[in-house]
Amino acid sequence: MKLYQFAATPSCRKIRIFLWEKGIAIPMVDANDGMALADWYCELYSHRMTPMLELEDGTQIGESIAICRYLEALYPDRPLMGTDARDRALVEMWERRAYLEGTAAIEEIFRNSHPMCAGRGLQGTADRVDQIPALVDRGRERLRRFFDKFERQLGDTRFVAGNRFSIADITTLVSIDFGRWCQLEVPAACVHLRRWYADVASRPSAAA
Amino acid sequence: MKLYQFAATPSCRKIRIFLWEKGIAIPMVDANDGMALADWYCELYSHRMTPMLELEDGTQIGESIAICRYLEALYPDRPLMGTDARDRALVEMWERRAYLEGTAAIEEIFRNSHPMCAGRGLQGTADRVDQIPALVDRGRERLRRFFDKFERQLGDTRFVAGNRFSIADITTLVSIDFGRWCQLEVPAACVHLRRWYADVASRPSAAA
Repeated sequence: MKLYQFAATPSCRKIRIFLWEKGIAIPMVDANDGMALADWYCELYSHRMTPMLELEDGTQIGESIAICRYLEALYPDRPLMGTDARDRALVEMWERRAYLEGTAAIEEIFRNSHPMCAGRGLQGTADRVDQIPALVDRGRERLRRFFDKFERQLGDTRFVAGNRFSIADITTLVSIDFGRWCQLEVPAACVHLRRWYADVASRPSAAA
Repeated sequence: MKLYQFAATPSCRKIRIFLWEKGIAIPMVDANDGMALADWYCELYSHRMTPMLELEDGTQIGESIAICRYLEALYPDRPLMGTDARDRALVEMWERRAYLEGTAAIEEIFRNSHPMCAGRGLQGTADRVDQIPALVDRGRERLRRFFDKFERQLGDTRFVAGNRFSIADITTLVSIDFGRWCQLEVPAACVHLRRWYADVASRPSAAA
């Protein structure tokens, strides 16, 4: 199998950290040409997103969390998606919140403000999609709620979904670093979230 | 365990169809008071979303797909989330597309246009969030791409994620019915999607 990636994106970094934590390696192919997806990749994969895992039989698995689910089934050691029914549900719940309330909020700000994204207000399409400036303020409010919610959670638990490092931590970490790259810092008042960040950002996998 | 729901929402209908297809029943509690979440529920569950599954030990599982994952582990008969590693990944991928490109696009249109949602442009918060009218047109474009994508897929397969009915079909069905409720119909040109819709909408579970 082979993983197609756009290395600078949060979703692709998520997979690289996941692989590192698992201690496994798979061949990687760059799907981008500068700051856009390469034409050959858009022809290969009509959904126009990265990452995408291609299996030996040609099956294309998109959506980073579906790719992780596949790899977790193949390599169950060092579980990153929970260890029993209840734990797996809590990991999935928190991973989804980290994505929908964190990554997606920052993506909304970035896509609707950065000059590089003019006419590309949404991912996954070749159509022109105009930026909507009002989404920048709304995105900042969403992000503020994301920080507050994860601050409360991390006041109670060592890791995002409990006492074990999981994919929920990985998605939260890539969200926060994506935000920092966009000059959106974790507020100083979020002491638990900052304690957690210092902890997970110092893991060797964070360099992946 | 106990499921808190706001019966009219797509996410809660998703769980009811899932339960019906599994042939299981769990106690349900209405979390809404008219068209808004009840105050007692917002106090019980700070994330202010439905559905939420409460376990005997008080654990709260939110996010409909995490609830389904939990129920699938408890009741593995009549699998709705895939049968092996590859199949599970493809079901997850298509379910996610149905949610992110279908349900979320319609939600965007509804939340940013319906008078009932004035000042409530986003779910999951008590803060005032103004509607952004420009999102209505953008949402319609997203929805057009959703219909096209699922039309292409259903030209190749009987069900959304392959030859077996799954949670990906359930999320697609509730998306389409949510759209119809908002006067957003599947285009006549989407013959495969309409054939699929007639098939799944006639299952007894669709009445759930």
